[in-house]
Amino acid sequence: MTKKFGVLTGGGDAPGLNAVIRAVVKTANRDYGAEVFGIRNGFDGLVDVEGVSLLTSEKVRGILPRGGTILGTASRGNPFARKVIQDGVEKIVDVSDLVVQRIHELAFDALIVVGGDGTMRISLELFEKHCPVVGVPKTIDNDIEGTDVTFGFDTAVNIAMEAIDRLHTTAESHHRVMVLELMGRDAGFIALHAGVAGGADVILIPEIPFEFDRVRDKVLARAEAGRHFSIVAVAEGAHPKDGQPVYRLEGDEVYTPRLGGVGRLVADYVSTACEMESRVTVLGHLQRGGSPTAFDRWLGTRFGSGAVRLAEAGGFGRMVALTGTEIVDVSLEDALAVPKRVRLDGDAVATARGLGICLGD
Amino acid sequence: MTKKFGVLTGGGDAPGLNAVIRAVVKTANRDYGAEVFGIRNGFDGLVDVEGVSLLTSEKVRGILPRGGTILGTASRGNPFARKVIQDGVEKIVDVSDLVVQRIHELAFDALIVVGGDGTMRISLELFEKHCPVVGVPKTIDNDIEGTDVTFGFDTAVNIAMEAIDRLHTTAESHHRVMVLELMGRDAGFIALHAGVAGGADVILIPEIPFEFDRVRDKVLARAEAGRHFSIVAVAEGAHPKDGQPVYRLEGDEVYTPRLGGVGRLVADYVSTACEMESRVTVLGHLQRGGSPTAFDRWLGTRFGSGAVRLAEAGGFGRMVALTGTEIVDVSLEDALAVPKRVRLDGDAVATARGLGICLGD
Amino acid sequence: MTKKFGVLTGGGDAPGLNAVIRAVVKTANRDYGAEVFGIRNGFDGLVDVEGVSLLTSEKVRGILPRGGTILGTASRGNPFARKVIQDGVEKIVDVSDLVVQRIHELAFDALIVVGGDGTMRISLELFEKHCPVVGVPKTIDNDIEGTDVTFGFDTAVNIAMEAIDRLHTTAESHHRVMVLELMGRDAGFIALHAGVAGGADVILIPEIPFEFDRVRDKVLARAEAGRHFSIVAVAEGAHPKDGQPVYRLEGDEVYTPRLGGVGRLVADYVSTACEMESRVTVLGHLQRGGSPTAFDRWLGTRFGSGAVRLAEAGGFGRMVALTGTEIVDVSLEDALAVPKRVRLDGDAVATARGLGICLGD
Amino acid sequence: MTKKFGVLTGGGDAPGLNAVIRAVVKTANRDYGAEVFGIRNGFDGLVDVEGVSLLTSEKVRGILPRGGTILGTASRGNPFARKVIQDGVEKIVDVSDLVVQRIHELAFDALIVVGGDGTMRISLELFEKHCPVVGVPKTIDNDIEGTDVTFGFDTAVNIAMEAIDRLHTTAESHHRVMVLELMGRDAGFIALHAGVAGGADVILIPEIPFEFDRVRDKVLARAEAGRHFSIVAVAEGAHPKDGQPVYRLEGDEVYTPRLGGVGRLVADYVSTACEMESRVTVLGHLQRGGSPTAFDRWLGTRFGSGAVRLAEAGGFGRMVALTGTEIVDVSLEDALAVPKRVRLDGDAVATARGLGICLGD
Repeated sequence: MTKKFGVLTGGGDAPGLNAVIRAVVKTANRDYGAEVFGIRNGFDGLVDVEGVSLLTSEKVRGILPRGGTILGTASRGNPFARKVIQDGVEKIVDVSDLVVQRIHELAFDALIVVGGDGTMRISLELFEKHCPVVGVPKTIDNDIEGTDVTFGFDTAVNIAMEAIDRLHTTAESHHRVMVLELMGRDAGFIALHAGVAGGADVILIPEIPFEFDRVRDKVLARAEAGRHFSIVAVAEGAHPKDGQPVYRLEGDEVYTPRLGGVGRLVADYVSTACEMESRVTVLGHLQRGGSPTAFDRWLGTRFGSGAVRLAEAGGFGRMVALTGTEIVDVSLEDALAVPKRVRLDGDAVATARGLGICLGD
Repeated sequence: MTKKFGVLTGGGDAPGLNAVIRAVVKTANRDYGAEVFGIRNGFDGLVDVEGVSLLTSEKVRGILPRGGTILGTASRGNPFARKVIQDGVEKIVDVSDLVVQRIHELAFDALIVVGGDGTMRISLELFEKHCPVVGVPKTIDNDIEGTDVTFGFDTAVNIAMEAIDRLHTTAESHHRVMVLELMGRDAGFIALHAGVAGGADVILIPEIPFEFDRVRDKVLARAEAGRHFSIVAVAEGAHPKDGQPVYRLEGDEVYTPRLGGVGRLVADYVSTACEMESRVTVLGHLQRGGSPTAFDRWLGTRFGSGAVRLAEAGGFGRMVALTGTEIVDVSLEDALAVPKRVRLDGDAVATARGLGICLGD
Repeated sequence: MTKKFGVLTGGGDAPGLNAVIRAVVKTANRDYGAEVFGIRNGFDGLVDVEGVSLLTSEKVRGILPRGGTILGTASRGNPFARKVIQDGVEKIVDVSDLVVQRIHELAFDALIVVGGDGTMRISLELFEKHCPVVGVPKTIDNDIEGTDVTFGFDTAVNIAMEAIDRLHTTAESHHRVMVLELMGRDAGFIALHAGVAGGADVILIPEIPFEFDRVRDKVLARAEAGRHFSIVAVAEGAHPKDGQPVYRLEGDEVYTPRLGGVGRLVADYVSTACEMESRVTVLGHLQRGGSPTAFDRWLGTRFGSGAVRLAEAGGFGRMVALTGTEIVDVSLEDALAVPKRVRLDGDAVATARGLGICLGD
Repeated sequence: MTKKFGVLTGGGDAPGLNAVIRAVVKTANRDYGAEVFGIRNGFDGLVDVEGVSLLTSEKVRGILPRGGTILGTASRGNPFARKVIQDGVEKIVDVSDLVVQRIHELAFDALIVVGGDGTMRISLELFEKHCPVVGVPKTIDNDIEGTDVTFGFDTAVNIAMEAIDRLHTTAESHHRVMVLELMGRDAGFIALHAGVAGGADVILIPEIPFEFDRVRDKVLARAEAGRHFSIVAVAEGAHPKDGQPVYRLEGDEVYTPRLGGVGRLVADYVSTACEMESRVTVLGHLQRGGSPTAFDRWLGTRFGSGAVRLAEAGGFGRMVALTGTEIVDVSLEDALAVPKRVRLDGDAVATARGLGICLGD
C-alpha cells in the first residue's frame, strides 16, 4: 500500500522552508513511493476545510529559490486556541483533541512538522499522544539546541551584514553613529555574527546586559582616534544592566523594551552622551524574506530529505539536526531541554573582544 | 600655469558621489593638466583649518565601487550659519562672506559643487558673487528639474525593490499586509518606480493625497479574490487627502507626518479597517548606502567628467545634466525654477493605474 | 464584443520579458476588457498545435521578478523556415504564408511582438501583409535605434560590472591581467558601460578596431606606475585593426573571431607581449539570465502597458520606445533604418578617454 | 619586549583572506601588545627587498568586505624555486634555506601562514626546521581535512548557485541544456553544494567517474516528462568512467581534461546524444573574487583571531580549524595526512540521489 506522509510549516517564515517541502516531496515520492500531503497554515490546516491536499511534484517545481512557504503558516500564539462563533457568540475553543483525532483519521504514516521551538513543543505533545511526528527545526534566531544551526539564519545574517555595509558609508560620510536593530529576542547570534562580519564597533546582545557608559566610551575613543563615526548592532532583546543610572527616553516613565525600542534607546543615548548625530534603523521583516542563500537551500534540502529517511526508519518524536558536516537526529525532548544562547566563554565572544568590539560590558 | 580646481560634496550622501570625485580628478589631471583640491565636509571645509587638500590620483584609487563620499559632507540646514564660541558664549555667525572670500583667495579656476537643490541654490548665490561655480546635481529622490535623472536614484530604487521582493514572501506566507515606507519627502519617484518594479498593490506618493477608503477597498478586493495579502509602498511624504473622516493613531491629537509616520498610519489603519494583520518597515538610511549600481557609477562618472569639460569651457553658473542618452548642461537658474514632481498625466502613472495598482485616489 | 490580443516573444531571452507579458495581460484585461492569448516559442506557436492559449491573470502571477519568458522563445535563424518530414524525407518548408493566414484566422485585434531587430523586421513584413502588429523592442546589446534603451541591457551591464568587481581583487592579489569577454557582436554598449562602471583599464568594442600595441602600452604603463595588474573588458565583436602585424593564436592559421575568441586572443597576446600572467573569462549566458533590475522591470512594464495603449490607438506597424523619461512610439521602418552603435563623438567615449581608459586606438 | 608576529598569504586568493589578516593584526595588537609584520606575495616576500613591513591598524582599515588579499600572493608551483639571473644566465635556485634563515633573522615570535594544502605542506617543513609556524587553512575547494570547512568556500558556492539560477531562466525559455563548469579539481564540493542549492538536474564530480549514458538518460527522461531543458553542474575535475565507449571531441585524439574541457565535452555529447541545443559556461575566476559572504568574513575573522591565540599558546606546527561551531586546532601533520573528498556514503550524496539528481553513475 502506498505510504502517506503529511507536512506542515509552523511559526514565522524563514528562507529555506520551501527547500524543505520540496525535498520532502521529491524524496518521499522517489525513494519510498510515498504520497505527501501538504497541510495549510500550520496546524490550522488540520481542522480547516480544504486544509489538506496532495503535494504533487508539479506543485513543488521552481520553489527552491523562493522565500516564505508555499504551505502558509500561522505564527500567532497557541495554535490550538481557535476563535469560533457559537450561538452568535465569539468563543475560544481548545482544538487540541480535534487535531490529534484528525491526524489519526488522516492515517499519515508520518507527519513532518517544520517549525521553531514552540512548534517543536507541540510536536512533542502530539508524539506523546501517539502521533507519528518527525520534526525539522526552523529558527532564524538560531536558538534551538541539538543542531549546530538551522536554515534561515545564514540568510538573515547576510542581509543584516549587507545593511551594516550600507550604513557604513553613510556613517563615515556624515560623521554619525548608526544604530541597527536586528532580530534576536532571547539569543544574540544574528547581531553577533552580522556585527563581526560587518565590522560593527559595538554589539549588544541579550546574553550580555549592557552598560550605557561602555557604549559611550567606545564611541568617544574612536572619535578621539580620528574615527568620527561608529556602527552599533543591537539585538532586539538586548537590555541595559540593572542598577545603573537609568537612561530614559523622553516621555517613557519606565523603559520597556519593544520592537524599535532598544535601538532607539541606544541611539538617543549616544547622541546625548557623545554629542554626535545618531540614527537608528530597524531591519525587521527584511531579515526573514527573500531568496535563501546557498547554505540555507542546501541545509533545508538535506533536512527535508533527512526527515523522510528518519520517518521511514520510524524515528518518531525526534528531529533532524546538523552536527559538524553531517545530518543526524536527536530526540525532541533533548533538543527542547535547554534553549540555545551565545556562549560567553566560546571563541566567538573571545574573537569579538579581541578585535576591540565593545559588547556593552 | 597649472590650473586649479576645487570639488566639494554637500547634502545627504548618495551612491555615485565617489564616482563623480574620481572622474573629476582623473579628467582634470589628464585632459587639462589641472590640479584638483578636495574640500572636506561640504562648504564647511572652506572655513575649517585643513579643510582643503590636494586630491592625488592615489587618493581616488579604488573608490568607484564605494558608497558615500570620501570628502565627507554636511547635511544639516544652512551651511553658512556656523556655531562659534566668542567670549565664552555660543553664537550663530553668518559665514557666507567668509566663504566667498576664501573661494577667491584659493584662486580656483573652477569650483565643482556636487549636491541637491539646497546646495545648488547656494552654488547659484556664489556664482552671482562671481565665484566660478559649476554644479553637479545629486538627489536620490530625483526631484531636480533640468536633468532626466541623477545618480543615486537607481541604487535607491533597486534597494527598495529588493525590500519589496523580500516582504512579498512573508506577506504571502503569513496572509499579511506589509507596508514599506520609502524616501521621498516631496516627490514620489522612488515609491512609484520601486512599487511598480516590485509588484506593489498600493503605492502612495506625495503628489496624490490619498483616501483611506481606497486603500481598504483594494486590500479587501484582493482578499475576496483569494489573495490574502497585499504590499503597500508609501513615500515618506505621502499624506491623506483633506476633508475625509480623519483616521488617527491612538494618542495623536492631530496627525503629523514624520519619519516612520505615514507608514505606521497606513498599517494601523489597514489592520483595523480590513481586520488583517499588518506590519510596517521603514527602509530609511539603507536606501542611500552601499555600492552604487552600474547606472549610478556610469552616470556619476560621466557627470564628473562632464563637469570638468564644462568648467574648461567657462560654463560657470551652470550644471551638468542628462537628457536622453547625452550629457548636456543647463543654467542653475533654470534648473531651480521649478521642482521636479511625478507627472500625473505621464505614462508612468497611466501604467501603474493600468496594472490595477491603487494610487490612493 | 471582447477584444482579442496576441503576444509572443522572439529571439534570445532578456530580463524583463515577463514584465512585458504581465503588463500586457493586466492592462488589456483591465483598461480595455480585452483577452490576451499567449503564443508559445516565438512565431513557431502560430503554426504548432497547442501553440496559442489564453493568458489569464493567474498565469502571469508572480512572474515579474523572474528572468526568461514564460512563453518560451525560438532564437535560431529564420523562424519561417521549418523542418518537416514529408513522405519520409526531411525538408525545409517556408511557412510565412501560413503564419500570415493563421494570424488572420485567429482574428487578433492586435498582435504584440516582443523581440530584437530580426524579430522587428519580421513584424514589419507581417504588418505589410496587413497583420495588426505592434512591436516591443528587446535587445540586451542595446543595438536598436528609435529608443534610448531597452529592457535587459541594464541587468546585463550590472552583471558584467559585478564580474569586473570580482576579477579586480584576484587581478590585484595575483598581479595579473584579467580579460573579460562580454556580449556585443556589433555594438559595444555593454562593454563600454560595464567597463567604465567597473573601472576597467582597457575597453575594446566593435566600433573601434583595436591595435595590439595600444593594449600592451597601457598594461605596461600601469605596471611601471606600480599597478601590477590590469582589467580588460572586451566585447565579443571587437576585432583588431587591419594592416597591423597580425597576432595569431598558436594553431590558428588565420584569426577568426568567435565566441571566446577575441578575449582569449587578447589575453594570450598580453601575456606574451607584457610578460605578465593573464586569464580570460567569457561571461556568456550569465549576462542574460536571472532576476531583472528595477530599471528593466520598470521599463518592461511600461513597454507592455504602452504597447496595449498603442494597439488600442491603432498604431500598427509601430513599436513603443523610450525617449528621455517618456514612452513614445516610432514606426518600425524608421527604427530599423539604421542600426544603433556607440557614438564615437559622444560624451560617453569622451568620458572613457578622459579617465585614461585605453580604447585600443 | 614587544612580541613580533609575521603573516603571509599563499596560493590562490580566496574571499576572507583580508578578514584573517585584519583579525590577526587587531587581536595581536590589542590582546598581546604584539606587532604584526606583513609579508608580501607569499613566501617570496621573505627573500624580496621590501617584502616585509609593519601592518598598522590603519593599513587593515576597511578591508573586511574586500575580496583578495592586501598582502598579495604567489600561486605558481614551488615557491622556493626562484628564477634568478647569475652571470647573465637565467637559473632556477632553491631558496628554501634562505627562507628558513630569513625567518630566524626576522626573529618572529610566530609566523602565521594562510594557505591551501601546498602552502600547509611548506609550513610543516618550516616547522620541522624550527620555524614557529602557525597555519590557517584556506581552500575554496574545501579539500583540506581537519576542519569542517574553510572561508572562501561559502562565497564560491553562492556565486555558483547564482549562476545556476541565471542559467535556469535561459534554459527554460530556450529549451536548452545548460552546462556550468565549476571549480573542483580533486574534490567536488562546490559542484555538489551549488548544484543541489541551485536545483541542477545532473551533477558530475571527480569522486564519481561518470557514464555518458546516464547523463543522456536523465536529460531525455526530463524531456519526455515535458521538461524540455536541463541544468548540468560539472566540477572541472570530473571525468568519464573508464571502459565505456569513449566520446571524443572532434579533433581530440585522446580526451584530456583541461580548464573548459569537461564542461564542453559534456555539452557537446548531450547536444548530439539528445538532439537538443546545449551551451557551456565556465565560471572560472569569478568564483574566487568579490566581497566575501557573512560566513566567510565571520570564519576568516575567527581563524585570524584564533591563530593569534594559538601562537600565544605556543601551538607551532598546528593550524586552526572549525569543528561544529567552535574553533579548535589540529596538527598540520594530521590535517595533511589524507585529502578531503566528498563522502560517497554521507547524507549529502544520499540527499542528491533522493531528489532524483543524476550523479553520472
